[in-house]
Amino acid sequence: MAFVVVRQKGFTVQCVVTVQPDLVSRQMVKFVAGLSRESIIDVQGLVSVPSVPIKGTTQQVEVQVRKLHCISKAMPTLPINIEDAARSEKEIEEALQAGEQLVRVNQDTRLNYRVLDMRTPANQGIFHIQHEVGSLFRKFLQSEGFEEIHTPKLIAGTSEGGSAVFKLDYKGQPACLAQSPQLHKQMAICGDKERVFEVGPVFRAEDSYTHRHLCEFVGLDVEMEIKKHYSEVMDIVDRLFVTMFDHLNEKCKKELDAVRRQYPFEPLKYLRKTLRLRFEEGVQMLKEAGVEVDPYGDLNTESEKKLGQLVLEKYGTEFYILHRYPLAVRPFYTMPCYDDAKYSNSFDVFIRGEEIISGAQRVHVPELLEERAKACGIDVNTITTYIDSFRYGAPPHGGFGVGLERVVMLFCGLNNIRKTSLFPRDPLRLAP
Amino acid sequence: MAFVVVRQKGFTVQCVVTVQPDLVSRQMVKFVAGLSRESIIDVQGLVSVPSVPIKGTTQQVEVQVRKLHCISKAMPTLPINIEDAARSEKEIEEALQAGEQLVRVNQDTRLNYRVLDMRTPANQGIFHIQHEVGSLFRKFLQSEGFEEIHTPKLIAGTSEGGSAVFKLDYKGQPACLAQSPQLHKQMAICGDKERVFEVGPVFRAEDSYTHRHLCEFVGLDVEMEIKKHYSEVMDIVDRLFVTMFDHLNEKCKKELDAVRRQYPFEPLKYLRKTLRLRFEEGVQMLKEAGVEVDPYGDLNTESEKKLGQLVLEKYGTEFYILHRYPLAVRPFYTMPCYDDAKYSNSFDVFIRGEEIISGAQRVHVPELLEERAKACGIDVNTITTYIDSFRYGAPPHGGFGVGLERVVMLFCGLNNIRKTSLFPRDPLRLAP
Repeated sequence: MAFVVVRQKGFTVQCVVTVQPDLVSRQMVKFVAGLSRESIIDVQGLVSVPSVPIKGTTQQVEVQVRKLHCISKAMPTLPINIEDAARSEKEIEEALQAGEQLVRVNQDTRLNYRVLDMRTPANQGIFHIQHEVGSLFRKFLQSEGFEEIHTPKLIAGTSEGGSAVFKLDYKGQPACLAQSPQLHKQMAICGDKERVFEVGPVFRAEDSYTHRHLCEFVGLDVEMEIKKHYSEVMDIVDRLFVTMFDHLNEKCKKELDAVRRQYPFEPLKYLRKTLRLRFEEGVQMLKEAGVEVDPYGDLNTESEKKLGQLVLEKYGTEFYILHRYPLAVRPFYTMPCYDDAKYSNSFDVFIRGEEIISGAQRVHVPELLEERAKACGIDVNTITTYIDSFRYGAPPHGGFGVGLERVVMLFCGLNNIRKTSLFPRDPLRLAP
Repeated sequence: MAFVVVRQKGFTVQCVVTVQPDLVSRQMVKFVAGLSRESIIDVQGLVSVPSVPIKGTTQQVEVQVRKLHCISKAMPTLPINIEDAARSEKEIEEALQAGEQLVRVNQDTRLNYRVLDMRTPANQGIFHIQHEVGSLFRKFLQSEGFEEIHTPKLIAGTSEGGSAVFKLDYKGQPACLAQSPQLHKQMAICGDKERVFEVGPVFRAEDSYTHRHLCEFVGLDVEMEIKKHYSEVMDIVDRLFVTMFDHLNEKCKKELDAVRRQYPFEPLKYLRKTLRLRFEEGVQMLKEAGVEVDPYGDLNTESEKKLGQLVLEKYGTEFYILHRYPLAVRPFYTMPCYDDAKYSNSFDVFIRGEEIISGAQRVHVPELLEERAKACGIDVNTITTYIDSFRYGAPPHGGFGVGLERVVMLFCGLNNIRKTSLFPRDPLRLAP
């Protein structure tokens, strides 16, 4: 009698294939025993519940094999084993204390052999959750009257007059890859689309080697007409994400458990109605906790982390909106506050102490837009098409952008954004 | 008394604002009369049905203005007028016959001022239909167990060893923009995702100046495990598109009418169960009609058009699948037919005589893949990561790809793909 443990695909099916010599020939047993791990087989057999419980599996189903055919033979020695890739730090450490050294697969090796790494239950869970986040984003927005748009990623000159872009030659013209759909999504609003969203790649040529930056990621972007106040944009953020988190917790239990088994994390704490703090209030909270920050400057990563802790202690939430940012630290197209031009109609959103969303009302008055561009040191001649878009009648509007990979990373409390991108791109990685 | 006709936004709201001097001051009348076209106003007033029907509008509602505030002032002379941009060829010709010369806005001018051009009822319709096509694509596939993936657009070297790509420098490494998600979507299947789809930009640096080519378009891509036969992939195409066409005809009546008013077209003829013809049968039909084509070559645009006519006459459909293409005219990764290696497990799909979808079963056996690559003159060393993906156990699989802009163009019988891309990119156009 030969027992062959077939790896469960994903984590939905778990079974043990028992080859019984009274049912199949000795040759089949030999054939099966010679199959390499991760080979794909077709099995015809009888599913039954064995009288003696099977050890080492979670499901007590046995397949009595009648026919077995190898569909795809894996190479005998794989670059990484799924069992190794699926192991948690805790297992490795416990084994070490018991005197056993288990293989730890590092992040780079995983990414080099992503096809194998993807097969772990945690990764099947992560990318299912990623799929759900995108799906819920669209579903919610569609139910609120938003329409999907697709804006070009190939842009003449250098986009947004901002930070590092990937440059290329476009049929003899200088071009670059879009750093965000910002300008085009605003143009769509000027083109009479009242509420739009986009899901698409965003390119950043920055030399950031952190746990939270990628050179290419999936941007979830929203832009909408504002009827009265920029809080309408925050209302969308609030309801969109509370709906999304509720759904993930409810419908992705198995996937979240699979992620948690390998990468333990606490469920995200969030309120039914998302907390909104004014920037000034945030600064005051930090001050009271002994952290002095410039009231008209930006928060650094450390202050953001600290404020996240303070907010969690005081309000019991790890998801909140900080709004009315100082004008000086926002892009030129951000609308100043009408009652105090040192501040702006803008906001950031934080999960677990990390910034995840940036949003604002935009300047829709061409004269003010020119003035703000000049004040920010931008050559107005390089953005004439953009500014001209507002000369044909432009409604007040605003929006926000969020990175898909960051949402998944922070919701699942993961420590590296490379875990939530199928084939990540960073300053050192362009393959596979 | 002053009548001010406010342009209807999109085509959902139509109204006439009547300013009555007994209700408002003379100053307001003067202010309103001085407002430039396309300016955006907030109006407070009483909606009523006038006793005397209003001429020249389709909706008989009057707003008796109490307060009026200009939100955004358009420049006095616009680069193009919406009335001109919304005019059909028929109107222009009828006017000409009556001795009146009306303005015709050409395609390039429209695209230069896309923000204004987008405001025509036809364009509001086209981009709503585009949104619906994307939405239906995802909804159908999700209901069939497909998950969305996002693959990188930045690729090391030159992608697929194929035609013209946009090249760029990636932190000192040679890179290019993905021509399709082909290799990565297959890798996702090898990574245990059974059924995946992607919606994302696709980049082609080809110098094609036709009505149907863009340098950047939105690819709708599908890849799936095959259990028994490549017809499973065609089954998905069949049901996906019939469901989509049904929905568009049913739910987008207003939008289709708006498109039709400016660009007249006949509704697409399609069958409940999509016709599948073998390539050999297509060749035979052409032969019988006096068109000789190479039975192991590809069809050119002209033969495709002709075959479309023949199929329409014989089967009464403008949407059909042609499958079992000659192996020699398909990419190296296409699975040969097991019963005749001169043919392949592949297909193209046609709408109104134009090819719109290309699909196939892929080679999942690494040795055969190497052999096929060599036979097609591809240096195997440049695609090792791709080939290696199949060495870890790979299921039989196949898929297809389709351009979003082409679906909308051909469903609506439009004559130019630039009409169905918000901000099109072709060899000569990189802006706005």
